[in-house]
Amino acid sequence: MARILVVNSNSSKVFTERIERTVGKYSSASHDVTYVNAAAGPEGIDSALDIAVSGVETARAISRERDAFDAFIVACGNDPGLDAARQVTDKPVVGIAEAGILFACVLGAKFSVLTLLRSEIPLIEEMVDGYGLRSRLASVATLGVSAAEAVGGIDSLYDEFRAAGQRAKDEDMAEVLVLVGSIMCGGIERQLTDDLGIPVLSGIVCALKMAEDLAELGVQTSRAYKYAQPAKQDRLIGYDDLAAVYSGAKGESAPESD
Amino acid sequence: MARILVVNSNSSKVFTERIERTVGKYSSASHDVTYVNAAAGPEGIDSALDIAVSGVETARAISRERDAFDAFIVACGNDPGLDAARQVTDKPVVGIAEAGILFACVLGAKFSVLTLLRSEIPLIEEMVDGYGLRSRLASVATLGVSAAEAVGGIDSLYDEFRAAGQRAKDEDMAEVLVLVGSIMCGGIERQLTDDLGIPVLSGIVCALKMAEDLAELGVQTSRAYKYAQPAKQDRLIGYDDLAAVYSGAKGESAPESD
Amino acid sequence: MARILVVNSNSSKVFTERIERTVGKYSSASHDVTYVNAAAGPEGIDSALDIAVSGVETARAISRERDAFDAFIVACGNDPGLDAARQVTDKPVVGIAEAGILFACVLGAKFSVLTLLRSEIPLIEEMVDGYGLRSRLASVATLGVSAAEAVGGIDSLYDEFRAAGQRAKDEDMAEVLVLVGSIMCGGIERQLTDDLGIPVLSGIVCALKMAEDLAELGVQTSRAYKYAQPAKQDRLIGYDDLAAVYSGAKGESAPESD
Amino acid sequence: MARILVVNSNSSKVFTERIERTVGKYSSASHDVTYVNAAAGPEGIDSALDIAVSGVETARAISRERDAFDAFIVACGNDPGLDAARQVTDKPVVGIAEAGILFACVLGAKFSVLTLLRSEIPLIEEMVDGYGLRSRLASVATLGVSAAEAVGGIDSLYDEFRAAGQRAKDEDMAEVLVLVGSIMCGGIERQLTDDLGIPVLSGIVCALKMAEDLAELGVQTSRAYKYAQPAKQDRLIGYDDLAAVYSGAKGESAPESD
Amino acid sequence: MARILVVNSNSSKVFTERIERTVGKYSSASHDVTYVNAAAGPEGIDSALDIAVSGVETARAISRERDAFDAFIVACGNDPGLDAARQVTDKPVVGIAEAGILFACVLGAKFSVLTLLRSEIPLIEEMVDGYGLRSRLASVATLGVSAAEAVGGIDSLYDEFRAAGQRAKDEDMAEVLVLVGSIMCGGIERQLTDDLGIPVLSGIVCALKMAEDLAELGVQTSRAYKYAQPAKQDRLIGYDDLAAVYSGAKGESAPESD
Amino acid sequence: MARILVVNSNSSKVFTERIERTVGKYSSASHDVTYVNAAAGPEGIDSALDIAVSGVETARAISRERDAFDAFIVACGNDPGLDAARQVTDKPVVGIAEAGILFACVLGAKFSVLTLLRSEIPLIEEMVDGYGLRSRLASVATLGVSAAEAVGGIDSLYDEFRAAGQRAKDEDMAEVLVLVGSIMCGGIERQLTDDLGIPVLSGIVCALKMAEDLAELGVQTSRAYKYAQPAKQDRLIGYDDLAAVYSGAKGESAPESD
Repeated sequence: MARILVVNSNSSKVFTERIERTVGKYSSASHDVTYVNAAAGPEGIDSALDIAVSGVETARAISRERDAFDAFIVACGNDPGLDAARQVTDKPVVGIAEAGILFACVLGAKFSVLTLLRSEIPLIEEMVDGYGLRSRLASVATLGVSAAEAVGGIDSLYDEFRAAGQRAKDEDMAEVLVLVGSIMCGGIERQLTDDLGIPVLSGIVCALKMAEDLAELGVQTSRAYKYAQPAKQDRLIGYDDLAAVYSGAKGESAPESD
Repeated sequence: MARILVVNSNSSKVFTERIERTVGKYSSASHDVTYVNAAAGPEGIDSALDIAVSGVETARAISRERDAFDAFIVACGNDPGLDAARQVTDKPVVGIAEAGILFACVLGAKFSVLTLLRSEIPLIEEMVDGYGLRSRLASVATLGVSAAEAVGGIDSLYDEFRAAGQRAKDEDMAEVLVLVGSIMCGGIERQLTDDLGIPVLSGIVCALKMAEDLAELGVQTSRAYKYAQPAKQDRLIGYDDLAAVYSGAKGESAPESD
Repeated sequence: MARILVVNSNSSKVFTERIERTVGKYSSASHDVTYVNAAAGPEGIDSALDIAVSGVETARAISRERDAFDAFIVACGNDPGLDAARQVTDKPVVGIAEAGILFACVLGAKFSVLTLLRSEIPLIEEMVDGYGLRSRLASVATLGVSAAEAVGGIDSLYDEFRAAGQRAKDEDMAEVLVLVGSIMCGGIERQLTDDLGIPVLSGIVCALKMAEDLAELGVQTSRAYKYAQPAKQDRLIGYDDLAAVYSGAKGESAPESD
Repeated sequence: MARILVVNSNSSKVFTERIERTVGKYSSASHDVTYVNAAAGPEGIDSALDIAVSGVETARAISRERDAFDAFIVACGNDPGLDAARQVTDKPVVGIAEAGILFACVLGAKFSVLTLLRSEIPLIEEMVDGYGLRSRLASVATLGVSAAEAVGGIDSLYDEFRAAGQRAKDEDMAEVLVLVGSIMCGGIERQLTDDLGIPVLSGIVCALKMAEDLAELGVQTSRAYKYAQPAKQDRLIGYDDLAAVYSGAKGESAPESD
Repeated sequence: MARILVVNSNSSKVFTERIERTVGKYSSASHDVTYVNAAAGPEGIDSALDIAVSGVETARAISRERDAFDAFIVACGNDPGLDAARQVTDKPVVGIAEAGILFACVLGAKFSVLTLLRSEIPLIEEMVDGYGLRSRLASVATLGVSAAEAVGGIDSLYDEFRAAGQRAKDEDMAEVLVLVGSIMCGGIERQLTDDLGIPVLSGIVCALKMAEDLAELGVQTSRAYKYAQPAKQDRLIGYDDLAAVYSGAKGESAPESD
Repeated sequence: MARILVVNSNSSKVFTERIERTVGKYSSASHDVTYVNAAAGPEGIDSALDIAVSGVETARAISRERDAFDAFIVACGNDPGLDAARQVTDKPVVGIAEAGILFACVLGAKFSVLTLLRSEIPLIEEMVDGYGLRSRLASVATLGVSAAEAVGGIDSLYDEFRAAGQRAKDEDMAEVLVLVGSIMCGGIERQLTDDLGIPVLSGIVCALKMAEDLAELGVQTSRAYKYAQPAKQDRLIGYDDLAAVYSGAKGESAPESD
């Protein structure tokens, strides 16, 4: 039985409870899923600054629980702190946008990512670029509401979701839609699938499946190159919780080139 | 309980039995996995011609069983016929190279694909290009043996695998390795992980996990655009089994642009 | 005098006769051009499945005549089976979309490809990606009619061609248009050139010129890497005609890297 | 007279003093340059985790001084927190790797970035990707020493710098070298220029010039899209200093698309 | 005190005087800026042919003054002859489109270039491609007037500039605008900044700043590879002024690979 | 009977005669091929400056003969002035590097371009980038001799050609080689084909074939966008021969966007 930790990257307990209520029903009976949120940082994540702060707090939340779980999920549509999180634990860490996008790749040629604000488009595009999948991206489709407005409930936003999805399908030639919000699941993805006639994936559900898979396979994040943990004698002032990460690190795991 | 069909794209029963023996132990008890091979075509897949022929035969094999399974796996490292297969059934179809590559993306910045012949490098590179993930590819690493030689048993090739993987890690800066052969699993991936110190994934195992996930989620291949099934009155001479695919197709599912 | 074989990739004799009538007048008196169609497969090519099946049947048609011709043309706007065809003969094989696109490159900065259905857009885009020329593609412009409807005669579709071409020029900034259908020649390309004020190329005519050129130069398809013919003892069950391809193959023609 | 704040992204006062001593002599008499370091976070920046933590602390350092300066410099070779920093002040913020790379573009076709550890290569490559300049990157050349070792003094590392630069020039065809470390200036760049026969730029010096230029021009960071500051009622728990950023934000500055 | 030569690439003295009047006020008192125009070639630069001719004449103008200045500016929005100019002097040469684009990169995620004619779009796009920055380009926005019409005065075109800029911001999601015309400065960039609410840069002003910076740093164009001056005994018939460039050249400055 | 003008872009009559002797035998009896060289500019083309000057002189040579020929060939491995040349005549203009590369695309997955100096590598790479075909380029392979040395005769350089080609095949995985020098034909390409076991194309021969084809088809360079000839009242000082190009031009042939 795999133990999965879902970290809501924002600091809102209300949000975490919503995630648990909606995501809970998707997990296999054979796995044990726990939900926490970042202990600090913004209550809603709308900007590059929010992403940076939430990213560190997400890594901290994972670091605190690094020995107690077999896989971790970063539950925010911007996948904040994913790289940092992969350095605080050897266990797999999956982002919900990342997982939604990867699953979308097997269902159609092009996907659109559905998010809230138009100002997030460059942030989402750069994230997809980072995953190397820009050529598969039909568009980033937006609803025109902020995270604060969305917390009121995605149910009341259904018409906006549907209209944005329809435009992505008709105008941007999206074949698959990916919902990257952490609370964008629980039925809305199925209703949209029926109404739009194309598959609509919930990123957090895909992440849950992928985390379970990786935990079952027993694989770990690579320590070669990007996620290497350099041996450090430096202090990490004000972040004692994270400093422990470096203890036991044995320096570069990759050979020098000459 | 999801029913998964694994199609060995080559026509060798011996190969299919090897796949069943090695892959069988990875599937959840809660799912039902069946193994078949292409009824015709090459016994080993080494070239563009082999891929084309095997691709059609793989689509035929899936077409014959389209009503009996919840998800399908194309079990050959070149993912032959994946696009065609996605038109003969509404159910998800996953390629083993595709799945291995997608899973590798969450474990490191760059992956190398490990395959048999140097002449396959352009074919594998073009396949990865097609998935949009060339920027994540560190290299295609090769062993220098043909499919015919490999069927003798991958166990006897362990040293070649290990040397190719070591070069990929040291020289090409691969952080993750993906084994894309249909029989490259059953323990070799774990042994290589231990010996090389980076995660080594077996594509067919990743595909099995992903097919189970998609079947559980109940999602289907998109019928918008790329995988649309045009309404046809044409005959499909000599391929009556596939012609049935078009019955019931309702023409373009995507609206015209003006 | 070069002998050229034009293979209509679909199985319709009516289509082949149309091609012969319209293309015939473009060939040099000094060359000998023969027209055949695939012996099996779809009568019209509209989908990924059609492309896969027609591709194999195209390779078979070429394989049967491999000793009788100096160059081969794959006559379908999706260039089905081009890679496979290049393995069944040492002589040059040219696709009509490929040739039209290559010729377009010397006449303007960006070209649009004109095809029938909107659902073909991803297939054409991926084909152009495969040729490496996506950055030169202004758009894939579509008429909104199926292959079945088009066989009735492209003359009756002239207004649709013209409107699609005008949109490509005005909105997508196409400087050259490429007609990739095998029957899209015989005068329509000149009429469109006059009416639209930009060069309009017929892919099949460009392919005819290119095949004549390559035959005159006496060059052959490279056997290094991608189109290498591995030495095989495997059987190619159900495809005896193609199995002969491998006889005489001497294994990888490229040296191993170490 | 422009006021420039140079923020050493790590928390080491020793490092900051070194930067001030070496960089100080490059600034115009007509400008006023102040040097601070991050109040918390790692003393040396070697990994993705360090970058994330230092990024937030860099944004905080800039936020504290947002009203007192005309331009800001992020002084670390990984440009940590550059995006976040651009949201906490309207004034221009320049990264030293960014500035070095941009200046290199006018001196040669390809540049190499010189950094310390081989494990940093993917991080630097992804940073250059983010700036859109991967096609101009000849290589990331590394010395094979950690930040902790480097603080001892770059003078003692001169031979390593020279050897790495020579390899970049000869093997990777670099035409320009960019030193991205915050203390990699003060003469070493000129000595390397003389010894290697190609221009060698110090990123921090380029950043100083660019910050002075932007301050003189009176331009500000764009608030459209990527660096928009959404109007928020959310709390930013534990980061009160940054929460002030959102006061006065007026929501999306870009019009909705429909 | 650095001596900067601004070369108006066209042959119009009127234009040069306009440039001097508007640009003059931006230069530091501490530098000495001189303005000349090409001695021959077109009076306005609108086409690929104009760019080629003006490019050679720009290189000639710089060659004549190669010993008298510390840095050079190519003052035309198409940066004509920039590569050639970098071979006739060791001192830095900066293009005004190039400088505007590089500065734009630090102020927002995407920029639009504002130019005159729609037919220039491919030329500008290819120029941006050449700089490697296509992924940062939101669009090339055009006013629809020729260079001849523009010389009448950009003041009378303000409404067209504003409308084109507004469309770039709203429809193409430009976060920064770059004016690449040599006379597009002198206040219009500030007025547009105020009216459009996003930073608007004048390329020629950015180039002036960058040229001053490079002159102060004392760096030179790289002579490795692209800008190498091969030792030549050839005559350069009809271009004696340029032939002198090769005197003293010592052949390839880069080592052969083996 | 088509009339083709081959313009040797350098000013060396000796070179032109060599070209005529070697290329002459490839042209169809049914066509009439004339050879001229640039009236001015360098006698050998080795650098960006040479390319710029030769480009203008090539355009001038074509302009002088614009009414007397049906197609034009720019005969230099750097395709100098190709864009400018396309504005001085409505008839097709083909570059020899361009044609060699386009023909190579149908014979293998990747080609290498064979040229003289290592310093030309960035120039050739940028040229291939401009054609959009970088992803098909295996490498630029160099002999390490200057144009001046090469004019002595390519026969004496055969061993260097063969060694460079062998490295391109073995190390860079080139499947096809393209000789882009204007005198690299006349048998050497066939000898190399035999010795290396992969097709070796002579760019100038390919260009001759392509020019004949385009002339036979009666197509012209597009006047939409990139090669539009703006209506100009400007003078083209010192280039009266080229000024005539603009007479009769009717302004932008493409509609404005709104």
